[in-house]
Amino acid sequence: MAQPKKVFLVIGAGAGIGGHVAKRFAKGGYHAVLARRSDQEGLRRLVGEISDAGGEASGRLLDASLPDTIEGLVEEVERSIGPIECAMFNLGAQIGNRKLADTPYKAFELGWRMATFAPFRLASALLPRMADRAKNGGRGTFLVTSATAAMRGNAGQHSHASAMGGRRMLCQSLNAEYGPQGVHVAQIMIDGSVDAPDTLGKLLGDQFEAYKQSKGEDGIIDPAAIAETYWHIAQQPKNCWTHEIDLRPWTDTPWWNDNPSAAINK
Amino acid sequence: MAQPKKVFLVIGAGAGIGGHVAKRFAKGGYHAVLARRSDQEGLRRLVGEISDAGGEASGRLLDASLPDTIEGLVEEVERSIGPIECAMFNLGAQIGNRKLADTPYKAFELGWRMATFAPFRLASALLPRMADRAKNGGRGTFLVTSATAAMRGNAGQHSHASAMGGRRMLCQSLNAEYGPQGVHVAQIMIDGSVDAPDTLGKLLGDQFEAYKQSKGEDGIIDPAAIAETYWHIAQQPKNCWTHEIDLRPWTDTPWWNDNPSAAINK
Amino acid sequence: MAQPKKVFLVIGAGAGIGGHVAKRFAKGGYHAVLARRSDQEGLRRLVGEISDAGGEASGRLLDASLPDTIEGLVEEVERSIGPIECAMFNLGAQIGNRKLADTPYKAFELGWRMATFAPFRLASALLPRMADRAKNGGRGTFLVTSATAAMRGNAGQHSHASAMGGRRMLCQSLNAEYGPQGVHVAQIMIDGSVDAPDTLGKLLGDQFEAYKQSKGEDGIIDPAAIAETYWHIAQQPKNCWTHEIDLRPWTDTPWWNDNPSAAINK
Amino acid sequence: MAQPKKVFLVIGAGAGIGGHVAKRFAKGGYHAVLARRSDQEGLRRLVGEISDAGGEASGRLLDASLPDTIEGLVEEVERSIGPIECAMFNLGAQIGNRKLADTPYKAFELGWRMATFAPFRLASALLPRMADRAKNGGRGTFLVTSATAAMRGNAGQHSHASAMGGRRMLCQSLNAEYGPQGVHVAQIMIDGSVDAPDTLGKLLGDQFEAYKQSKGEDGIIDPAAIAETYWHIAQQPKNCWTHEIDLRPWTDTPWWNDNPSAAINK
Repeated sequence: MAQPKKVFLVIGAGAGIGGHVAKRFAKGGYHAVLARRSDQEGLRRLVGEISDAGGEASGRLLDASLPDTIEGLVEEVERSIGPIECAMFNLGAQIGNRKLADTPYKAFELGWRMATFAPFRLASALLPRMADRAKNGGRGTFLVTSATAAMRGNAGQHSHASAMGGRRMLCQSLNAEYGPQGVHVAQIMIDGSVDAPDTLGKLLGDQFEAYKQSKGEDGIIDPAAIAETYWHIAQQPKNCWTHEIDLRPWTDTPWWNDNPSAAINK
Repeated sequence: MAQPKKVFLVIGAGAGIGGHVAKRFAKGGYHAVLARRSDQEGLRRLVGEISDAGGEASGRLLDASLPDTIEGLVEEVERSIGPIECAMFNLGAQIGNRKLADTPYKAFELGWRMATFAPFRLASALLPRMADRAKNGGRGTFLVTSATAAMRGNAGQHSHASAMGGRRMLCQSLNAEYGPQGVHVAQIMIDGSVDAPDTLGKLLGDQFEAYKQSKGEDGIIDPAAIAETYWHIAQQPKNCWTHEIDLRPWTDTPWWNDNPSAAINK
Repeated sequence: MAQPKKVFLVIGAGAGIGGHVAKRFAKGGYHAVLARRSDQEGLRRLVGEISDAGGEASGRLLDASLPDTIEGLVEEVERSIGPIECAMFNLGAQIGNRKLADTPYKAFELGWRMATFAPFRLASALLPRMADRAKNGGRGTFLVTSATAAMRGNAGQHSHASAMGGRRMLCQSLNAEYGPQGVHVAQIMIDGSVDAPDTLGKLLGDQFEAYKQSKGEDGIIDPAAIAETYWHIAQQPKNCWTHEIDLRPWTDTPWWNDNPSAAINK
Repeated sequence: MAQPKKVFLVIGAGAGIGGHVAKRFAKGGYHAVLARRSDQEGLRRLVGEISDAGGEASGRLLDASLPDTIEGLVEEVERSIGPIECAMFNLGAQIGNRKLADTPYKAFELGWRMATFAPFRLASALLPRMADRAKNGGRGTFLVTSATAAMRGNAGQHSHASAMGGRRMLCQSLNAEYGPQGVHVAQIMIDGSVDAPDTLGKLLGDQFEAYKQSKGEDGIIDPAAIAETYWHIAQQPKNCWTHEIDLRPWTDTPWWNDNPSAAINK
């Protein structure tokens, strides 16, 4: 009888980071399950591209803000496809720069619901399963996309920064409990703009191409490059695990550096 | 006609940090408004102690997790007592060390609702008012109690750390928008146990006294000492503001230090 | 017989932070010993101002980069004046923004010698004495001025950031060993420009006044305000110690915030 | 005429991290230059192992604490072998846990000289060359081994933490100046014990094997696994660079987590 294929699950599988990491894991022999909120056509395209390249993939539409969706997905995927060896949580909650007065309670709550509560729900549904399998030598990896806003708040980031900062502390808590049980929890801090048509592209609309041009050569992160780093981290042996790593273009100022010309004696 | 008294408001006014800071501000000439969720008797006692010492105070029972309570309180206090010159958010969301499997969704959400969303609501209701008054030379200070769990996640802290980490990033975001408008936002990171009967005392119950003894002389933070630091920060002139400060007993290991005897080559 | 007066020692006592903190401690009843590298006249003036205000002070010229100077000062002060209850290390090593190619080895080494090695020498000479006295109920406080560059490197800060970053880790190490022995080690992170004629004033020369004007009202830190915070920290009881605190003007962007308008999706 | 081979240089090439990264780069097509302070025989063995595996390597004995050694090495290697495309600084300054009273000035200074000043010298000699070549499309990568002690001081770590903390801020400063010139500066924070016979092995002596056993399966980092991560980072395209990453065994507590059982209300 055939061995059930090891499964990679990504929640937040657009044409940017999520889709490219899915392709990388499919290329590496995983059955990739791609979940996203909307755009059946875009999802079909991604699944098709993986199949055309000789990989295995399935797509699911799912609203991570609704009850039972994430939990049901984990249950269904494990039952119908196989144990999820690696999961990636890739939803953000960026709503652009908004003053406090322009940040309604509803937006603030939705930010938390998507960016903090949803990965908690995924972890609650999946990490105990991974820990059980790790007892028998199985692997379990939980990859979480993080962002600049998880490292420091900033003007206009009331919702996004608090949601991503909460996520970061959640990941450290998950790591503290599940690391010693053999489940690898890692967060990848994206500290620059990504060439992601479904998120940044939609945020900028018509100006997306001009924005990319303005950043110069290699000035915007290629999601395929990000995917190599996710893949690398998922391959690390148990004696050598990364919990946190940052990524940015060479031309981008890291989050901890302001413009040096503006600073005297700092 | 009498000048309306300047007002200090604390949400989370138990017999520990909240109550002591209220006493300190009352002693410094503020009308202290103490809000807490329950224990009318305890609230009456605190207000009475302030009055007996010659200060002015009022008490309010209020459930910060319910809609409109915080917003209504700000409105009512400013109308009936006077402009809130300094507000302190002092609610936490500590539920003790809980494994992931023992952290229900409801507890996780309540943690966020109390520790992240409630200060966002208070800020939304109050900071624009403070900024308006700052234009005409008024002072506005927003003091937020922070905790070890805001700095790093840990086993058993899934709910608490993500809520407090989110709060920390929120405070940095508020500071970035409102600092340059003349509103002082500061967070005070309590990195040790506090002699607080209403929170730690209730968590430990019968063992509270034994726990305090076990910490040795000056091994547990005196909330009156904390109050002096809150007061100091609120007195800083605009050219010299603190945004973040830590506090712990001399015998406590800071959050960034594990036991050195356990470490080789670290 | 008269009680020997408690002594406050500051190394780096110019007309800015060092001099003002000395004045604050003298006002609080300490004999202030002011040590600086040069400018006998400026030193005499500071000592005179303290005496005129009814305080006690002595001055010492001392080159902290030379062997035995710091050690000899501690020995001599404790013998001839009294036990040093509080010491403050206030020398920096700012040499302005210098490209790597413009940072000679000698400058890099001097930066370390002044900003990292000198406080290590002061701690080596003094902390064991303070710890001995703490066994019998004595107080010992070690205050270290820190800077933005201790938190993050930046272009042009090769020498300054590595020296100040080394100092920060040194202070945490001193705190870990000496805190539990009753010696309070604290670092005060100055994250803005200070109205300090002897350091920033000399760096900027003719442009100092124009620079201050350009920062607007309350746009540059008043060293007298800083002094209140140093004093506050030195008064904290053993159960409630601060190890690190930041200070900046309301108009200054904190080190962790770049210009939000420059950031998209960060 | 043959293309000059691209060169990988490691300073601190023992049988642990340095040697394994050299092997990885040799396998990837680089001529590996291995420099270490002593043990000609150990050096010969490493170079031989690389040759036997079909790679190219050279060895150099060099005392990085002496003047002109690092500078001369860069000059000589670039002249006689080829341009250094990737350099790795791997010297530490761990002297074990030492109380302040047991940390002589000489040890403290040597710590800085090896762990902070030496990489500054290497950067001064090499980064301008790399930046020049980057103008014409060349690659330049500067990899620096970092440690727990770079993130926080601790008891007994006065020398090590201040030297490694200074190194970390130096790397951020180098990155700020040279990143936008096309030179990739990255630090890899090793937050656990490494199976390194020449460093930890010598520190522990007879107890090294027992120590490794005590850490359990996969409880000590395999330097070959570390080497894969160094290699990965050196392959990242310019639009997707890592500046900092952590590595530790699954069983090790990260530096930011103390023992949760010891903490109440933290």
